[in-house]
Order: sequence, then structure tokens, then C-alpha cells
Amino acid sequence: MRPSGREAGQMRPIIIETGFSHHAEGSALIRVGGTEVLCTASVESRVPPFLRGKGSGWVTAEYGMLPRATHARGPREAAKGKQSGRTQEIQRLIGRSLRAVTDLKALGEICITLDCDVLNADGGTRCASITGAWVALRLALGKLVANRVLQRIPLTGQVAAVSCGLTNAGAVLDLDYAEDSAALADTNFVLSADHRIVEIQASAESAPFAEDAFNTLFALARKGAGELFEAQLTAVNVAEQCRT
Amino acid sequence: MRPSGREAGQMRPIIIETGFSHHAEGSALIRVGGTEVLCTASVESRVPPFLRGKGSGWVTAEYGMLPRATHARGPREAAKGKQSGRTQEIQRLIGRSLRAVTDLKALGEICITLDCDVLNADGGTRCASITGAWVALRLALGKLVANRVLQRIPLTGQVAAVSCGLTNAGAVLDLDYAEDSAALADTNFVLSADHRIVEIQASAESAPFAEDAFNTLFALARKGAGELFEAQLTAVNVAEQCRT
Amino acid sequence: MRPSGREAGQMRPIIIETGFSHHAEGSALIRVGGTEVLCTASVESRVPPFLRGKGSGWVTAEYGMLPRATHARGPREAAKGKQSGRTQEIQRLIGRSLRAVTDLKALGEICITLDCDVLNADGGTRCASITGAWVALRLALGKLVANRVLQRIPLTGQVAAVSCGLTNAGAVLDLDYAEDSAALADTNFVLSADHRIVEIQASAESAPFAEDAFNTLFALARKGAGELFEAQLTAVNVAEQCRT
Amino acid sequence: MRPSGREAGQMRPIIIETGFSHHAEGSALIRVGGTEVLCTASVESRVPPFLRGKGSGWVTAEYGMLPRATHARGPREAAKGKQSGRTQEIQRLIGRSLRAVTDLKALGEICITLDCDVLNADGGTRCASITGAWVALRLALGKLVANRVLQRIPLTGQVAAVSCGLTNAGAVLDLDYAEDSAALADTNFVLSADHRIVEIQASAESAPFAEDAFNTLFALARKGAGELFEAQLTAVNVAEQCRT
Amino acid sequence: MRPSGREAGQMRPIIIETGFSHHAEGSALIRVGGTEVLCTASVESRVPPFLRGKGSGWVTAEYGMLPRATHARGPREAAKGKQSGRTQEIQRLIGRSLRAVTDLKALGEICITLDCDVLNADGGTRCASITGAWVALRLALGKLVANRVLQRIPLTGQVAAVSCGLTNAGAVLDLDYAEDSAALADTNFVLSADHRIVEIQASAESAPFAEDAFNTLFALARKGAGELFEAQLTAVNVAEQCRT
Amino acid sequence: MRPSGREAGQMRPIIIETGFSHHAEGSALIRVGGTEVLCTASVESRVPPFLRGKGSGWVTAEYGMLPRATHARGPREAAKGKQSGRTQEIQRLIGRSLRAVTDLKALGEICITLDCDVLNADGGTRCASITGAWVALRLALGKLVANRVLQRIPLTGQVAAVSCGLTNAGAVLDLDYAEDSAALADTNFVLSADHRIVEIQASAESAPFAEDAFNTLFALARKGAGELFEAQLTAVNVAEQCRT
Repeated sequence: MRPSGREAGQMRPIIIETGFSHHAEGSALIRVGGTEVLCTASVESRVPPFLRGKGSGWVTAEYGMLPRATHARGPREAAKGKQSGRTQEIQRLIGRSLRAVTDLKALGEICITLDCDVLNADGGTRCASITGAWVALRLALGKLVANRVLQRIPLTGQVAAVSCGLTNAGAVLDLDYAEDSAALADTNFVLSADHRIVEIQASAESAPFAEDAFNTLFALARKGAGELFEAQLTAVNVAEQCRT
Repeated sequence: MRPSGREAGQMRPIIIETGFSHHAEGSALIRVGGTEVLCTASVESRVPPFLRGKGSGWVTAEYGMLPRATHARGPREAAKGKQSGRTQEIQRLIGRSLRAVTDLKALGEICITLDCDVLNADGGTRCASITGAWVALRLALGKLVANRVLQRIPLTGQVAAVSCGLTNAGAVLDLDYAEDSAALADTNFVLSADHRIVEIQASAESAPFAEDAFNTLFALARKGAGELFEAQLTAVNVAEQCRT
Repeated sequence: MRPSGREAGQMRPIIIETGFSHHAEGSALIRVGGTEVLCTASVESRVPPFLRGKGSGWVTAEYGMLPRATHARGPREAAKGKQSGRTQEIQRLIGRSLRAVTDLKALGEICITLDCDVLNADGGTRCASITGAWVALRLALGKLVANRVLQRIPLTGQVAAVSCGLTNAGAVLDLDYAEDSAALADTNFVLSADHRIVEIQASAESAPFAEDAFNTLFALARKGAGELFEAQLTAVNVAEQCRT
Repeated sequence: MRPSGREAGQMRPIIIETGFSHHAEGSALIRVGGTEVLCTASVESRVPPFLRGKGSGWVTAEYGMLPRATHARGPREAAKGKQSGRTQEIQRLIGRSLRAVTDLKALGEICITLDCDVLNADGGTRCASITGAWVALRLALGKLVANRVLQRIPLTGQVAAVSCGLTNAGAVLDLDYAEDSAALADTNFVLSADHRIVEIQASAESAPFAEDAFNTLFALARKGAGELFEAQLTAVNVAEQCRT
Repeated sequence: MRPSGREAGQMRPIIIETGFSHHAEGSALIRVGGTEVLCTASVESRVPPFLRGKGSGWVTAEYGMLPRATHARGPREAAKGKQSGRTQEIQRLIGRSLRAVTDLKALGEICITLDCDVLNADGGTRCASITGAWVALRLALGKLVANRVLQRIPLTGQVAAVSCGLTNAGAVLDLDYAEDSAALADTNFVLSADHRIVEIQASAESAPFAEDAFNTLFALARKGAGELFEAQLTAVNVAEQCRT
Repeated sequence: MRPSGREAGQMRPIIIETGFSHHAEGSALIRVGGTEVLCTASVESRVPPFLRGKGSGWVTAEYGMLPRATHARGPREAAKGKQSGRTQEIQRLIGRSLRAVTDLKALGEICITLDCDVLNADGGTRCASITGAWVALRLALGKLVANRVLQRIPLTGQVAAVSCGLTNAGAVLDLDYAEDSAALADTNFVLSADHRIVEIQASAESAPFAEDAFNTLFALARKGAGELFEAQLTAVNVAEQCRT
């Protein structure tokens, strides 16, 4: 009954490839079905002005979409001369999500920028960005530990995100573009591996929806997040074993 | 234990004054404690390009803050030459929230712009904006019915918003600035008067938070929203009785 | 014969309310008929680069209009990404006018920003801004004296502004929007209470006008300014008596 | 006693050369002492949106300054990405001044753009721009008559501008840069050849100034304008005789 | 003697992968050594204004670089709010180069946009973009023929580009980043497969260089282009055989 | 057979007038036929950030065109809020060309900005800009030597530029606008007086062109450059003799 034939609680295949970027301190090319996002972590020793001299680090994010990542070509934001409200909203979300699991004090005066660029889009790009960005961040931090800049990985846990929604096929997990564009309600759950909440964004699309439905969507999200946490760990392990 | 001495589940005083704007088809000056937002509804017969000729209307919102609405003067966005990501995020939220209770088909090819300008800020400006914007929208629609442009008010219900958060004083309703700037988790609930969900935004500020806490905050929000729905109805009734 | 039924030399009612802004060091909500402007004075200890280390202060102004202050909604300048030529011209005028009565040396390395935001517009918004800004500035300076930052109020006098114009009803004082939009000549007089000139802006609208007419308009302006100077003093006295 | 040794009421030498621009329908390179402005008039058959189909024409102006027209190189506005408030104020003034002597109805649906670009600056650039722009406009209109697009020159008279100011040497005519930058009051008079007023801009620089002083400056301006009107007529006559 | 150990006339390995983009009508992911560019061709039926109704098509290009494609992270152009001069220069070059081998009349009123986004940069990104863009364009045109929108491929030939330069190791082919950043002269040759010139850009880096050196570089470029033309044909053949 | 009746290898008349700019340290008003460019050299003691403290100077260029320098009025870049890709490409070219003959080490921590503003355009404006900019730069450096800021002129030679192209009349030197807008190939040669190459830009306009044609164009350029080098020297000699 879903356009893709998936079960209500079935994620699309998740593939996280590391090392795609030649220069970034950490990188992950994450594929969730037809959605593909290149996440890179760039380490700089210069923190933003409001943090200088405070002994604390920063994690921030930028998000972009290649003009033809989508079904119809969209205008290039650099050519239009500004980032859309949607882009800014997403990159603020990614930054907040990753900071919520980072020990900024332990990081010290280092700024890590997470660039999430969508190469192919089929729904759920902000969620894939968060999930992939965690891997890129984790690998960059691993390199800082390996290079003895840090003594330990300054992360308090894992964070991943998944979208759920109310569609004609009912409450479903991990919406693709066909589902997303026709959903009655659209939710993004950013969760930590220790079963806590990092961010929830729930939006009615054309009419308010019931609390029960919200609870069903939340349960689906918890299940999906579990699979994402596993895929993250596998990707990190493979990447770090290759290196040694 | 709260900086203001309020109970955990106690809203700040709510005052909604109508008719402050001389020219707008509908207007509401909403005060929630020290937060004060002027909401105006402007009716235009020209819908955005993507809706032209489709027989459907549109409701959109813009948000602004006077430079000295805040403790320290902030830069004027018009002078900086762009709206911040925060501003864009808020005005998108206001627009979605009001559209969720508007029957756009019944509105016909009319566009209503809701301008929410913060005159004094003390936390919760986006929530006050949504709550006040509903009153401005309702009054503008009432005028369209009075002028026989519309046959009935094309609203499916009431919408209001309130923030809740986890603070040192525990889970509390309707955060003021002092609480907001030190909260561990910050949530905005946009709810409809028929006990459904329009939008939920929940953000961990420095560390993920538990689901139980989220449920407590949701319960507080429901209580606060009830008071807001009443204040909205009172304001509309007073305004429409004055007119007749 | 004037649309409002006023005499040629009759001002609209003037009301100056202080303390509307919760956070500003000085504020005045000035109403001149249907024109309503919120003027705030913000004190900062950081002067612009060209004055640093020179022991002199600065007074500057910014002007804005809420989108629905006018009969038809105007575009929001922050959303358009730039301030119009008209806005810039007005805020430069306000700044120059207030600096002309300020002893910048006596102010010391302090910068005061006067924000003039039009909440309701019915002609004469730049003049009301100047008149109200003087009250906001005066109150902020009074607070600096009260806080012993300054020893005396570093003002050399009062400044106020009024528009006059040639209309179908002849030379008239204090144009409202209906008169302003149809005037043959439009003049703004910024005057000091000691009968001197701060700024004059006189513009023919469709054809040059005679010197005699200019002299008549100037005489009307002197009369109107007298009423404004009184209203300013009353507002300051009320505000400062309340405080003590 | 003036830095240049001129008498109080003495203009700098005025030279108006026509035909400098190869392509413009009318052009005047005006030199007033060391100030040199290239004014071109460009005729287009497309009026701005608010005039379309109304049978009326438009005259508008743009102003610019070459980066090294001044003593110290200034930033290029095209590179900075915006025109300064000063530039916009000046080009609005030039446009209004020329429209005040143009019969826009008689012009018909034609738009004439006056570009005033300062090649060398030594004070009084806005006044030289207005004076030169009138010549460019007059020549372009003459060409439209010669080409039988128009039956007569749709001008109601001549317009010219001159600055006067209060300096250490007293009230003086036609300020150069050295005088302008140290003046106590700065005034620009835009006058018509039939002794009427087009625009007056008078600004106190550091303290309000007396009405008597204003009257003295006005008298000087009338004298200076007389010389400018003559120079304009001479330039037009020379240009049109050359052509025939 | 070259940093990479390559011979003077040796290209880096060339790999052109097609179909990386899920939605574009044609796409090529080209790798030349460590430089990797995703080129997509997007077909739209709307030509730019200057061509409307003229029966002719258009080919245009946009170029971008992911922030961390480079050794050190560069600012995101969308965030800065404008494309650099370098970016604009490159995308204009790509567009001109591809139009030079396209029969725009035969294309009809179709616009094809070539997006070239650098995923990894190691010198020669503009050349790789042109070479890859030809493959993307060719595949998109092949699809238009397959879909019977066009009767034949409206290309007059193949175009490819390669950089050459004068380095400490003498005149060399296909500069990588290490060579490029230290070159004495830098040239880009855009050539057609029938041995003609599409574009030449030759720049002395610190001092003028001799004509003989230019001729040597040109000869190297011809050799390198031969390899690129072959790689292009192979990629197109593989892609089109897969499809059938 | 050329629209102007010139021989294939015939330059337009070259006139270089110095001292047109009153304030610039060096200036040249160069006329090549109907193309007229004002080039000024401005000396500042502040180098760009990437050079500070390195003991090396900088030469940079900015290019602009007055709106009515062209047949039809073009939009003013300052009003549009950005410089076109063409403008940026040209000013980067001018800067690179002049730096190629400047000994930046010998210049010391000085920045010279070359402003090239086109007053009248008839083809070849970028070439005239380079040729004129060299004169302005040379004169400014001469003044620095005269003022004992420098001990010798830090130039390694002369640079000049000329365009050549393939037209219906064959390969021709120094294209005017009529030729340029219809050319089959358009080339710009920036050459040094010691017969070396500074920059070559060759572009096919509608179809690739043969190498033989390129060689013919190069030979024409060498001839034209010879005349430009002579005109440059004459202008410098006249200017420096006047001064002494």
C-alpha cells in the first residue's frame, strides 16, 4: 500500500560509505534509499567570536542541495545570492542536534563544521544529513585523538534522525519523496542512542492531527533510529579498522 | 522557585487588544507578561504565483522584532540586508500554523498576510505571535463576511501556541526570557482548540532529555493553551460587539 | 476646506507617551493625529570607528515602518533585503537633526541610537519621528545623569519638526496623508526652541512655487513648532516626576 | 579670506561642453571649478510600471562618482553591492528637480534617464549634476522634436542649482570642498529661471543657525543661479547651431 | 621531477562514470586523478528571454565547489551571498565551450543547463568540468532523440579541455594542485576533436613567458585532449549500451 | 571591406591624455577610436590582508562602464547591487596583466588600485583599459620615485593589449563594436614590450576555429601592440616633461 511496497515500519536500505572526501578530517556518504548526502567534518582551530578565550569548542553545520539533486532542477542558492529559509532551518537543526551529544568543553577551542550536501534527493534529506554528520564528526574526532590533540572522543553518545508521517497508507516510517509530498502530517525525530530526545519537529500539513497518531509515529521513529545507530557504528568501525 | 515566582503550571497574564492598527483589516496587540506583539492581517486579492487560477486562497506570515524590543539593542534586519535564519524559521512556523486551521478552498483567491512585529520581548514571542495572529485573521475574515465577500468564516478551528521547558525549577509552562535563556530543553506546542496537534518543536539545549519529561511538558502546554483559546474568543467577541 | 476640517494653522492633537518600551534607556510613543511613532533611545558605550579614541560621542538614527502602518500593506524592508532611498533619507535627517542640538564632546565616548518605528501612518512620519526622538534622547540622557555617568544633560536645546504644504486649501500646517499626497509643495521644517533653523527641506511637487508661499509656510511652521516644544517638555516632566 | 581667494558672492568658472558622450541622445560635461560631472540623457520608450498606459512620461536620474574623483579613493558602489544613502538621496533630488520643469503629459509615454557621473569632485557635485542634467535633457528633447517624435520641447522652464554656506569667511556662494567640509551650515538651492523655488535643502552642521543667515544665503543663491541659467542657454545654443 | 612522478606529457588516470545523478537527463561523474566533478545536464523547455520565439535553443552552465572539496575548507558561496569572480568566470567558460559544438538552431526552443559541482579538487577543475559536461550533454541529447523530441543529436563535435603549465619541471600536461599553485604560467586549452580551437586561456603568473613555451604547451594539450576524447566516447557508449 | 574601411592590420587612432583626473597619483584617458577609458592609479599604504607584514606590494584593478557608454543604456551595476560576471572577469584580467610586469617585492608594502572606467565604448574596452592602466601605473610609480618613497620604478617592462578577430572581412586587428558583435572568433592578446606573452584569451563564437587562423591573429596582435607601446612611452614622456 506504500508507493515503494515497504511495510509501515520498514526503513529503506542504509549504506554509509566513509572516506569519499579526500581532504576532510572525517566524511560519510550516506545513502538512505534514493537519498544520498555527502557529509564532511572540517576541523579548524578558530572558534566563533562569542566563544573566544572561553576554553570551549563549537560544532556547526551547513546544508546544501545540488541543483539537480531533485526531480526538477532547482535554482542554485549561490546564484540566487541567498540561502532559503528551508536551508537555514535545516542547517540550524543539524548543528543543534550534533552539539547536543558533544562535550564542547572537552573539545577545547576547536570548531568543527559539518557540511551536508545532498547529491540525490528522495525525501528525508535532513534526517540523513544528521545521521551521516554524526559519522563524519566521530571520525574527525577520532583523528584528533589519534593525533593526540584530544585525549578522548568528546561525544556523550550517538545521534540519528528519521522522518515519520501520516499518509494514505497510515502512519509510516522513513518517508520517501512520493510519500512526503502527499503526507497529512510530517515529523522528524532526532534521537540519541540512550533512548532520549534531541529534537522533535511535528507539523500538520493541512489539518491538525491527533495525539494518538503522534505516539504511533514516535514508536516507529524509535525502531528506525535503532537501525541507524547500528549502521553508524558499523561505518565507524570499518573506517577505523582500515586505518590501522 | 521560578524567577517570576510563578507556579510551574501558571501562565503570565494574557491581554489581547484589538483595533490598535488603524488600517489593517484585522489586528491584535497581544501581551503575554512582558512580551508584546502587534499582529495585523492584511487582505489582498492577489495570491502567490503557484496558486493563480486554482480557486484557492493563501495565508502567509512575516515576523519582525523592533531593534530595541530586547534587553540589548539588536541590529535592524532591514539595515543588515537580510532576515536571520531565526526570523525565517519563525515566520514559516506562523504561516503553517494558521494555514492548518484555514479552509483555503473556502477562502477563494484571496491572500492574507499576517505581520507579527514584536514591540517588547520577554520570551515566547513566536507563541504570542501565533496566538495573536489567529485573532487578527479571525477579525479580518469576519470583515470579509460582513462585506459579503465571503459567506462564512473559512476557519476550521482555533489555534494557539505556548512554550514549555525544563528549567532548574523543573518542567514549567510559558517561559519568560530569564527561564528561556537558561533552559535545558525548550518546546513550543501549537495546538488546536479541539485537542489536536498543529506543530510541535522540541529541542534539547545541551543534552538529550527523557521522554517522560516531554510528556510532562505536553500536559502543561495543553493547560496553557486552554487559557489562550479563551482569551482569543473574548477578544474577538469584544471587537465584534463594538463594531455592531 | 481642509479634508479634516482643520484651520490652516491648526495642528492635529499631539500626545507623547513615555515608557512604552520596556528595555530602552528612553522611549516616547508620539501620536500626531493618526500618525503614531515609537521612538527609543539606546545607549551603547561603543562609538563608530571614525570617533574611537577622540573623546567625542555620537547620536544616530534608524527609521522603519511596520508593513501595515499604511493604507495598503507595503513590503517589509527586511524581506526585500534593503532599505529604500526614502528610508535612508529620513533616518539621515533624524540623525543630523538630533546631533545639531547635542553637545557631542560633553556626551563623551557614548553612542546613542534613536530607533523611530512607525506603527500607524497618516502623514508627517519623519517630523513626528524627530519630535519624539528628542524626548527619547532627553530621557536617556537624564538617566545617564541620574546614574552619574554624565554630570549634566549634554543638550544645547530642543528640536522639533513639522510639515507644511501648499494644497488646494492654500498654505496649511501639519499635513495629513490626504493632504500630503495631493500637495503642490511639501516642506519640512526642523527648528530649535530658540527660533533657529536646524534643517529645511522644501520640494515643489509638480511645478516650482513662489518665494512668498515659502515664507508663509515658514511662519506656519514656527507656530506649530511652538506647540511641539511644549508637548515635549510636558512629556519629559511627567516621565521624570514619575520616576522620583 | 575664502580658501580660493574668491569674493563671497563669486561663482567658480562654469564650462558646459556638449556632445562628450557618443551615444546619448543628449549630454553635457559640466565643470564648475574643479568639479566635473558627465550628464547624459537616455531616451527610452518604456515608462515605469506605475505609469504604463496613462499617457504620461517620466524623468528619472541616477548619480555616481568614479572611485578616484575624490582626494582619497572611495570604494566603488558596484563592488560594495549597494548605493549609499547619500547617493540615493542625491539621485532622488536630481530626478525631482528635473521633473518639476518637465511637462510629463506633453512628453507622452517616454522615459528619460539622466545619468550624472562625477569625474572630478571639488564640492557641489549635486548642484552641478542638476545644472548639467538640464542641458542634457534639453538637448535630448530637442532631438525628439527634430525627429518629429514630439511637436515642441515639453519643458516649462530652466532649472539650476547652487550651494551656499556659512563658513569662517561668512556667508558664501558656491562652496568648494575645502569650504564644504568645514561649513557651519550647508544649503542647496534648486531654482527656476522664473525666480521660483524647486527645492531647498538647508542643514545646520553643528548647531542651529539664524533665519537672517538663511535669507543671506538665499540671496547669494539667486545671484549664482542667474549665471548658471546663462551658461545653460549658451551651451544649448552652441550645440544646436553646430548640428544645423 | 614532477611532484606526482608523472612524465611531462602524462595525463592522470581518467574515469568517467555515468548515471550517478538519479534525476538528471544526463550525468557524468568525471575523475581526473584526485579531481572529481559531478556534471549534470538538465533539460527545460523554457529558453532565456532574449531567445524566446526565435526557434533557437540554449546551453548554459553553472559551476560550484563543495566547501570541503579543497585542502582547507572554503566558505560556501550560498552562505556568503554571492558567487566569486572565479566561479563566474569558470561557468561562463564552460557555457561558451559547450555552445561552440552545439547546433542551437537544431536544438530548438530547449534550454540545457550543465551543473558542474566539484566534489574533490586537485587542480584542473574547470577542464574536468568541460570534459565531463560534454558527456552529460551528449547523454541528455541522446535521451531527447530516444524520446523523439529531436531527430538527431544536435552536436557538431566533441569538446574537451586540459590544463598545461610551466613549472620547475618544465612544460607539463595536466597540472595537479601542487603544480598549479607554483606554476610560472598556467594555460587552459579547450579543443575540439577535429583539431580546432574552442578557447585558449594563457596567463603568466609572475612574469611574461616566451612564445616558444606557449607552443610547447599547446602541443602537450593536443596530446592530452586526444585521451579525453577517447574517454568521453567510451563513457557514452557504455551508458547507451546499458540502456538498450 | 571592414565596416570602418580600415585595412586588416590597421589600428584605430590612439590618443593617451594624462592628468585628466585631478586627484589620482597617476591617470590616463585613453582613446582608441571611439573607445574611451579613464584609468587612474591610486596609491595606498595598506596592502590586502594576505600580504600584511610580508614586505610585498600589490596591484589590483577595478573596471566599470558608465551606463550610457554604450549604444543602448545599460543598467548601473551599483543600482543592480552587483557586478556582472563580465565585469569581474575583466577586472581580474587587468589586475593580473599589470602585476605580471610589476616587481611587487621592490614596490614594498604599497597597494596600487587601477580604476578603469569606460566613458565611451566602441569595442576593445578591456584592451584599452590594460594599455591605459599601464600609463597610469607608470606615472604613479614615477611620483613615488620623485617623492623618494621608492628608489626606482619597480616595473620589469611595458604591457599593452589588443583584440583581434575573425570577421567576414577575414582576420583583422583592433575590432570595433560592429566587428566585435559579429565576429566568428574573438581574441585578446596581452603582450609585453620584450615580445613575451602576458595573457591570451581566445574564444570561438559559434564554431571552433583553426590553429592557422589563431597564428594569423597572433601576428596581427604583435604589430598592433608595437603601436601601443610607442603611444604609452610618448604619453609618459610628455607627462613627466611637463612636470619638470
